[in-house]
Amino acid sequence: MNYQRFFEDAIDQLHAERRYRVFADLERMVGKFPRALWRTGADTREITVWCSNDYLGMGQHPSVVSAFQDAAGRMGSGAGGTRNISGTSNPLVELERELADLHGKEAGLVFTSGFVSNEAAISTIARLLPNCLILSDELNHASMIEGVRRSGAEKRIFRHNDVGHLESLLQAAGRERAKLIVFESVYSMDGDIAPIGEIADLAEKYNAMTYIDEVHAVGMYGPRGGGITEREGLAHRIDIIEGTLAKAFGTLGGYITGTSAVVDAVRSYAPGFIFTTALPPALAAAATASIRHLKSSQVERDAQQRQAAHAKRILGEAGLPVMPSVTHIVPILVGDPELCKMATDRLLGVHGIYIQPINYPTVPRGTERLRITPTPFHSDELILQLRDALVETWDALGIPYGSVQSPQVSTSERIVPLLVPKSGG
Amino acid sequence: MNYQRFFEDAIDQLHAERRYRVFADLERMVGKFPRALWRTGADTREITVWCSNDYLGMGQHPSVVSAFQDAAGRMGSGAGGTRNISGTSNPLVELERELADLHGKEAGLVFTSGFVSNEAAISTIARLLPNCLILSDELNHASMIEGVRRSGAEKRIFRHNDVGHLESLLQAAGRERAKLIVFESVYSMDGDIAPIGEIADLAEKYNAMTYIDEVHAVGMYGPRGGGITEREGLAHRIDIIEGTLAKAFGTLGGYITGTSAVVDAVRSYAPGFIFTTALPPALAAAATASIRHLKSSQVERDAQQRQAAHAKRILGEAGLPVMPSVTHIVPILVGDPELCKMATDRLLGVHGIYIQPINYPTVPRGTERLRITPTPFHSDELILQLRDALVETWDALGIPYGSVQSPQVSTSERIVPLLVPKSGG
Ligand SMILES: Cc1ncc(COP(=O)(O)O)c(C=O)c1O
Ligand SMILES: Cc1ncc(COP(=O)(O)O)c(C=O)c1O
Repeated sequence: MNYQRFFEDAIDQLHAERRYRVFADLERMVGKFPRALWRTGADTREITVWCSNDYLGMGQHPSVVSAFQDAAGRMGSGAGGTRNISGTSNPLVELERELADLHGKEAGLVFTSGFVSNEAAISTIARLLPNCLILSDELNHASMIEGVRRSGAEKRIFRHNDVGHLESLLQAAGRERAKLIVFESVYSMDGDIAPIGEIADLAEKYNAMTYIDEVHAVGMYGPRGGGITEREGLAHRIDIIEGTLAKAFGTLGGYITGTSAVVDAVRSYAPGFIFTTALPPALAAAATASIRHLKSSQVERDAQQRQAAHAKRILGEAGLPVMPSVTHIVPILVGDPELCKMATDRLLGVHGIYIQPINYPTVPRGTERLRITPTPFHSDELILQLRDALVETWDALGIPYGSVQSPQVSTSERIVPLLVPKSGG
Repeated sequence: MNYQRFFEDAIDQLHAERRYRVFADLERMVGKFPRALWRTGADTREITVWCSNDYLGMGQHPSVVSAFQDAAGRMGSGAGGTRNISGTSNPLVELERELADLHGKEAGLVFTSGFVSNEAAISTIARLLPNCLILSDELNHASMIEGVRRSGAEKRIFRHNDVGHLESLLQAAGRERAKLIVFESVYSMDGDIAPIGEIADLAEKYNAMTYIDEVHAVGMYGPRGGGITEREGLAHRIDIIEGTLAKAFGTLGGYITGTSAVVDAVRSYAPGFIFTTALPPALAAAATASIRHLKSSQVERDAQQRQAAHAKRILGEAGLPVMPSVTHIVPILVGDPELCKMATDRLLGVHGIYIQPINYPTVPRGTERLRITPTPFHSDELILQLRDALVETWDALGIPYGSVQSPQVSTSERIVPLLVPKSGG
């Protein structure tokens, strides 16, 4: 065994498959969002970020930044310990209360990331429940898949958002067996939304627990930013609502909310929660400031929806293949990994527009895309600049124009969008 | 299946076994470390923290706090995306260079925590290597155990720090088979140190990769804070050095360093690295400031060693059962979970001294202990106060005095310290 050679080969293989990723070195600038400095070697350029998940620009909000700085000045830069060993800070305790309130649940529990919250909570709940069967949407995020795997529980994958399929699996398992349905509200690569009410109906009918990932919805939907479950008045019908502090709330960390008993069980049994340093008080304070602001302010949500709708319209009118999305996410189909990479390289190099190509394994092969996330800070003017840059790029590289038919066709395995070519455009 | 009842029962069981944990709600105070505010209900008291893993008090160091605040003011409170999708900030790129330099390695890679770095790196390396056998020290941390499990690779556990046992396992596997030895430098509950040189010799002899967790050593050992591997001139003989930014460096996050090829493979293949929001630039900047300070300043390391040695001497002279430790960690044996909890409750309630009880499963049953971590900020006077409080508590609760014999006796399964009762004390 030649270890060095082995790992070099593994990297070469990524290069050969054109899957090797180079991270853009960026410096965001408070007050100039979504502008950022991009460094390549000796060169530094100012560019526009069009793919940030700081969806509402809260990461630069004055009340969030000052809560962050103030807490750091008073309490320092770290937590100094695990939750159990000196790491539970008062801002963290407050944050957990705030989150429970946000979702109308008895209790909240904060993790160092949304990834860890999914991994730790799903695996722990399913491991505790005797002979648990997990029912998991086929498009669930990697962090949920890790949680499912780590649980060791038996699992059944249901076709994306397909309640008929889910019901047949629930029926086969029977009412008595412990069952956990895990799914997302907003699926972030397509921008579609789960039929939450119907899934809750099925859960009731067949006595299953429900676990929803609202990572791409919290802060952005519902009158207080409680997510799609809040918007649709369904929060009380879902057992565990999971979310992140790192996207619309603009900070770092993840969480679950639910009954005191479930949350306490995860708190007490999940290694990924127990054996790691707690989130620093400054991050907790910043997250609380962000959540509180978005609980009462609708301005950011309205502006985001307006600019997302505007972008979809403008790009669609230019004949660009905007994939159907009922949310703030604007995916543009390219359908080829090389072209996708070339397009984004050109957008950045020629137009100063940064959009990361989304290739396999993040999305199925053949559905490679640009994933655009307009925020309240992406003005009409920036949207027009984006359109012009995309059209120039599409023309230069010969990428197909056309409209993408919805709903996407679900094969037994994966989602395949249908591109209907457009004359002209 | 009654889910609510089930989880309530799971919690009741913890209460019944006296394993239910209540987290102390603390507020650390910059400039007054190790003092903190402790909240219970309506009451708030100032107490002394004696169990923080902010080992050098760097979490309140002016250059660290100002780097944190400054970066937040300029770049905001979050990263805004995963590493690949807009989340790679310039401070993070700099931090990774700093870490590679710290350990004399080609490359560094930062994760959201030390837990995630172990889980993601160990599982990914062992999964990539064909038919990999993992050799794992029996006292490895939960995060390493998760990594081993998650890899799906075959594993053999070797007795704690037992190179004879490790060799027999390596020999049985043969030179050709891929092998990964995973171990820690400083074991944080006992304060002992692995025979790193001998393990490196064996790895060479049998052609195994080596992975060391230096979480409880980085910043604190070696002339530049590169850990025990630096102190003993062994860093170049270990393939992957893992560490945390959340203990001696006073911030949050974890990392690995190694050859470019290995680090790039983990970067490219580990779900726990790829599918999660990057560390905020402010944390990266603060960590870099902390590492840089400790690369050139020996003051903190000297003061920590001095106060730890002083505490061991003073507490030992009082007849308290100080467990043998060759590091900054000062464990005091109680040997009973109830007594351990009663002792810490009394220390906090009566003496304003906060030390979390360390019970099963963090340590083996029968070895329940207080784990004390003197820092440069724990003065001689505080150490005397601690001694008096411990003696009062030991007397009040009738906890046995005595000296603990070293080295600990390793049974085939677990470590059992031997308490030799002392007359008097
Ligand atoms: C659906 C979903 N869940 C969870 C996560 C993880 O959240 P975090 O970035 O806080 O780790 C992500 C993305 O990062 C996600 O897209
Ligand atoms: C040996 C060891 N490794 C890793 C970790 C995890 O590091 P972090 O707190 O940064 O997640 C810890 C404790 O937290 C530890 O004790």
